[in-house]
Amino acid sequence: MNGRRPAYSKSSLLSVAHLSVSEVSAILGETARIESLSREDRSRLLDGRTIALLFYESSTRTRTSFELAAKSLGAVTTLVSDKSSSIEKGESLKDTGLTLRALGAECIILRHPSSGAPYVLARETSLPVLNAGDGMHEHPSQALLDLRTMLARLNLDITSVNERSLGGVTVVIAGDILHSRVARSNAMLLPRLGAKVILSGPEKLLPKEALDLCDGVEIERDFDVALRRASVGFAVTMMLRIQRERLAGLQIDLADYIRSYQLNNERLNATAPRAFVMHPGPIIRGMEITGNIADSAQSAIEEQVKHGLAIRSALLVRALGAGGFESGVA
Amino acid sequence: MNGRRPAYSKSSLLSVAHLSVSEVSAILGETARIESLSREDRSRLLDGRTIALLFYESSTRTRTSFELAAKSLGAVTTLVSDKSSSIEKGESLKDTGLTLRALGAECIILRHPSSGAPYVLARETSLPVLNAGDGMHEHPSQALLDLRTMLARLNLDITSVNERSLGGVTVVIAGDILHSRVARSNAMLLPRLGAKVILSGPEKLLPKEALDLCDGVEIERDFDVALRRASVGFAVTMMLRIQRERLAGLQIDLADYIRSYQLNNERLNATAPRAFVMHPGPIIRGMEITGNIADSAQSAIEEQVKHGLAIRSALLVRALGAGGFESGVA
Amino acid sequence: MNGRRPAYSKSSLLSVAHLSVSEVSAILGETARIESLSREDRSRLLDGRTIALLFYESSTRTRTSFELAAKSLGAVTTLVSDKSSSIEKGESLKDTGLTLRALGAECIILRHPSSGAPYVLARETSLPVLNAGDGMHEHPSQALLDLRTMLARLNLDITSVNERSLGGVTVVIAGDILHSRVARSNAMLLPRLGAKVILSGPEKLLPKEALDLCDGVEIERDFDVALRRASVGFAVTMMLRIQRERLAGLQIDLADYIRSYQLNNERLNATAPRAFVMHPGPIIRGMEITGNIADSAQSAIEEQVKHGLAIRSALLVRALGAGGFESGVA
Repeated sequence: MNGRRPAYSKSSLLSVAHLSVSEVSAILGETARIESLSREDRSRLLDGRTIALLFYESSTRTRTSFELAAKSLGAVTTLVSDKSSSIEKGESLKDTGLTLRALGAECIILRHPSSGAPYVLARETSLPVLNAGDGMHEHPSQALLDLRTMLARLNLDITSVNERSLGGVTVVIAGDILHSRVARSNAMLLPRLGAKVILSGPEKLLPKEALDLCDGVEIERDFDVALRRASVGFAVTMMLRIQRERLAGLQIDLADYIRSYQLNNERLNATAPRAFVMHPGPIIRGMEITGNIADSAQSAIEEQVKHGLAIRSALLVRALGAGGFESGVA
Repeated sequence: MNGRRPAYSKSSLLSVAHLSVSEVSAILGETARIESLSREDRSRLLDGRTIALLFYESSTRTRTSFELAAKSLGAVTTLVSDKSSSIEKGESLKDTGLTLRALGAECIILRHPSSGAPYVLARETSLPVLNAGDGMHEHPSQALLDLRTMLARLNLDITSVNERSLGGVTVVIAGDILHSRVARSNAMLLPRLGAKVILSGPEKLLPKEALDLCDGVEIERDFDVALRRASVGFAVTMMLRIQRERLAGLQIDLADYIRSYQLNNERLNATAPRAFVMHPGPIIRGMEITGNIADSAQSAIEEQVKHGLAIRSALLVRALGAGGFESGVA
Repeated sequence: MNGRRPAYSKSSLLSVAHLSVSEVSAILGETARIESLSREDRSRLLDGRTIALLFYESSTRTRTSFELAAKSLGAVTTLVSDKSSSIEKGESLKDTGLTLRALGAECIILRHPSSGAPYVLARETSLPVLNAGDGMHEHPSQALLDLRTMLARLNLDITSVNERSLGGVTVVIAGDILHSRVARSNAMLLPRLGAKVILSGPEKLLPKEALDLCDGVEIERDFDVALRRASVGFAVTMMLRIQRERLAGLQIDLADYIRSYQLNNERLNATAPRAFVMHPGPIIRGMEITGNIADSAQSAIEEQVKHGLAIRSALLVRALGAGGFESGVA
């Protein structure tokens, strides 16, 4: 990925790694434009166009979000999942992609357990591919919707963002950073808009090497300290889902983990009482976050989902060249 | 559920327990109105509205019925099932519901193995929720379509039903009453319209406590006696699916069960030769019902499915406030 | 099937066995007509009509192909698969079919593991049924799309085919003939249009009895000899998917199989260098076919998928009586 970029479709979204601030701004501008349309006008944007959803991992919100975005734009969709398809028969990703292209798919939305799979699919099919999560690598549309959610909470105009838009904002990402593509994409994207990102978690879930991923990111293992540092400016805390089994496998004590990293009222009031709370979902109440925090006015969890629909609509319009985009590259 | 009702969306259908006869009449009236429309006019009733199907249990007819009803009204649908979703990851019903609402769902159709789940979903999301079967509790849209089927067989005008509409009708519900939400909903609804309901089955599948569920219902363990009593007026026999494994688990002999409770030509001719036959499906031919009965002119099984589509269309229109409903509450 | 045909819906496609050349010609003519329409005109052909997909086996390309064909014609579709339906509860094919008909389905697309299942469904429902693969019996829409692909490669007018259209064409079908419904349907259809068909494979995968299936077909176990014979005229080689487990079960050595039957550059160049290559998919690269052959200009694999969409559109229009068909029977 260093040096010259390979010749992927210009309107794919494979990663946030190469997404310039001006491209981010263009996507957010398109998002705002689509949000301003009536339902009827929106339903004409991709009228009769064909979009395939290719999901090798289970998903509720990301799949439903892309699917409803596509349908609300008037597109025809088809879902291919690993549960009932030739994937079971050993067909390669390349061949499944070529089949979908031959069936008229003009864009493929891919979730895959292997990091980099969207690059393979985009290269082999020459179609625009939207990465809906690839292994432990990236979840770029999630990072964009998280950004859009922050801008909304900051009351900022989303049609013109720049390198200083998130100046004064500190985002604490806490929990299982190691396995989280959401954390990775956010940690790459947000500093580019001026945010400070602090990662917090026990060493087994947040190895030192995580720091390599990009500039402007640091590690603070003590979650309380991280939150206090964030509270100096505009504080955001982004919680990640914890799987009980994973903790056991890593020999991390659950009670200990909850004591150190659960976001609850007591902790939030003591450290960053005005912080707003994000979570990519699905949340496990009582584990990484308490129910009353998730349901509080500080929680932006539902806003994230809502903005996801709009961001993904813009990404689809961009992918199919139906909007005001000229030569967006990512 | 005693005293004041909680503030569910007025257009939910969670149960038949609180459904007044005038509400039933309004739903049937809307059903008739929708049936009178051309396909094209029907497809504009919910044009572009968003409806989510949330199924935690497998289903053919109920899921497909609601889905095709929604699509034929012009709505955009999305299906979330336990087979390929975050449900696997431990997300709560509440959080799945909030996610669907944030994604733009204006109504959720829920099937769930736990009794009462639709109440939780309706309370937490404030959305109209249509109960598509909750545990062993209720299946209200099934009871409405069963009622509508009976009215059709009786040649009654469905636009104005009242407490005496089913006067002179006796409905024998036979088989596994204990585990049947269909039996429960029918046993609550039909007597309110004037029908007599007789439950029939062995004690292990029909405990005495079943009588508590509502007035005007009695138990007659001898299926032949029950059918003979029904045949005095307009007789309906509603058969329930029997799972072979369940009988074994309850130590009921299969041959004995078939001898006592299977609906076959010999039994029907000897007891209630003009009775008409209903079954919520799926039917197991040769178990609770013989194939020739299921395929006979007395069988209303396919009519039930057909009326289900119309009833569910009306329920969706009611849920989204798109019809002539003013403030229906159930 | 001998003597008088049963009274199936005239617009079903259950088998190629009874498909006359003039019926094939009519289907291809309708295919051409649909291909010539604009997307918008195409979307009105089946506007608001209801089509059910009933899949008892997993499938990517066939299911997606029929589904996208139906949607692109404006139809409303519903998918019932064995993964999440009453099929699990033991409901018979007949009863599932009657339910779908009662729900408004005007045509059912069926994939089923039992040979002959589409006949049962068509007889019991009286609906047009399109066979999307039944056991080891037939896959008629695949044979039609394969035919259409050959005609395209031959630059022949598809609106008027006859008994000599494939004169001079030899089709070598190689691999697991025994288990292949694709092989069966092609071996019956193609000779009727004038093609010579040679089957090639080891005895365990191609028993002598395969010859019984129709006239004009012969067996040549040596794949190289078969290809050389084909190369005299217009050569087509149709490769079939090999399942590694199946070879092991039949005690066929994998290395030996690959040596004798894999289609690779060396073999193709030595025997039939201008042959064009077909495969119904899913392909397993490195097994029955090498990746460079599959990706070469000689490969028509993606064209097959593309033509499949058009053929299936025509079959749906024919099934619903919406095209120029008068009384097509198959």
